[in-house]
Amino acid sequence: MRIDIITVLPELLKSPFEASILKRAIEAGLVEVHFHNLRDYTTDNYKSIDDTQFGGGAGMVMMIEPIDKCITKLKAERHYDEVIYMTPDGDTLNQGIANQISLKENIIILCGHYKGVDQRVRDLFITKEISIGDYVLSGGELGAAVLCDAVIRLIPGVLGNETSALTDSFQDNLLAPPIYTKPRDYKGHKVPDVLLTGHAANIEKWREEQAYQRTKDRRPDLLED
Amino acid sequence: MRIDIITVLPELLKSPFEASILKRAIEAGLVEVHFHNLRDYTTDNYKSIDDTQFGGGAGMVMMIEPIDKCITKLKAERHYDEVIYMTPDGDTLNQGIANQISLKENIIILCGHYKGVDQRVRDLFITKEISIGDYVLSGGELGAAVLCDAVIRLIPGVLGNETSALTDSFQDNLLAPPIYTKPRDYKGHKVPDVLLTGHAANIEKWREEQAYQRTKDRRPDLLED
Repeated sequence: MRIDIITVLPELLKSPFEASILKRAIEAGLVEVHFHNLRDYTTDNYKSIDDTQFGGGAGMVMMIEPIDKCITKLKAERHYDEVIYMTPDGDTLNQGIANQISLKENIIILCGHYKGVDQRVRDLFITKEISIGDYVLSGGELGAAVLCDAVIRLIPGVLGNETSALTDSFQDNLLAPPIYTKPRDYKGHKVPDVLLTGHAANIEKWREEQAYQRTKDRRPDLLED
Repeated sequence: MRIDIITVLPELLKSPFEASILKRAIEAGLVEVHFHNLRDYTTDNYKSIDDTQFGGGAGMVMMIEPIDKCITKLKAERHYDEVIYMTPDGDTLNQGIANQISLKENIIILCGHYKGVDQRVRDLFITKEISIGDYVLSGGELGAAVLCDAVIRLIPGVLGNETSALTDSFQDNLLAPPIYTKPRDYKGHKVPDVLLTGHAANIEKWREEQAYQRTKDRRPDLLED
């Protein structure tokens, strides 16, 4: 998989891709991630990428021309399955969307900043708009990092143990059950007995019950689907 | 506001706090962010912070002892309003939760990694569990960065123009209307006439209609609340 990220703040995105699972996936050649600094696609001496909005109002708007240039250049080099815009009014990211995107070959992710991009960018170039949640961030960069993390860890071979992702929350519409590790007794707080029995069927049953109960208590909406 | 982030991967968190709005907020003294590397609170020579789970199964679990030590040390130094654990089965972050947290003085954010933390950590130390969305990430670090960004930009003085945050999506349960900037005509794609009239009342009316229509089309659930 190849991911091209268009941003005005490539430096903000650096460290999440230089650590942990994303780093290993990149080093293993399972995914390529390229950053494109929008200022490299400007035409004026000030390298302007934004301007005030028509009709007035607070906040700057990202201009269409540098974005057009960058996307057009990338598209001339290869076919892209999706051109994704990170925006709070996009489709809310969930595990199903992450699964779908993890099957794509080449994607572009455009990070908005300031108040967002000129609407014509969205009308002309964007094939999918994604929000990571119902809150506002100072830019699309963290959203892009979140999307990449959610997607890349699903690519076969990225996680050391492939069953690990399948037992995560949301993969089966249930939250994950409680988990425990050593010591058995921490200052009087003990691990549930069943987990120490070695009785695989009972443990499985307990986990299923706990996962169901936790989902019912915390996220009954997941059980309605 | 002071935010203490407990993590096994402080290096992953670096760049989001060294750019843009978070950087400026920190430099202006409006918020302090401290990273605590959990490995500094281990007691064995291997600096172990995780172990296999009781009852078997894929994935490592973060042990209670280093986390206990770190949280206990911090709490001895000052009062904390919340000890937040980033986890996919927590309360889903939204703008209301971000607003509430932005009013706190001192908070701790614990980032889970691997399969998560020993359940006893959650039972004994955590006052609030937050998820940034219905998807699984390789760790809580990106979630913590997202939470910090959403919260810090709401602190008075952080955004250059305070009205800017108030016209964002979600602050009034409506998505933001389309925005446009120069040029008026880009390769035949024009800015809506009303935005060029200079007629403030008409522009306001158009934006309200557009915001309502966009919300109705994309997120009718927001209108039901």
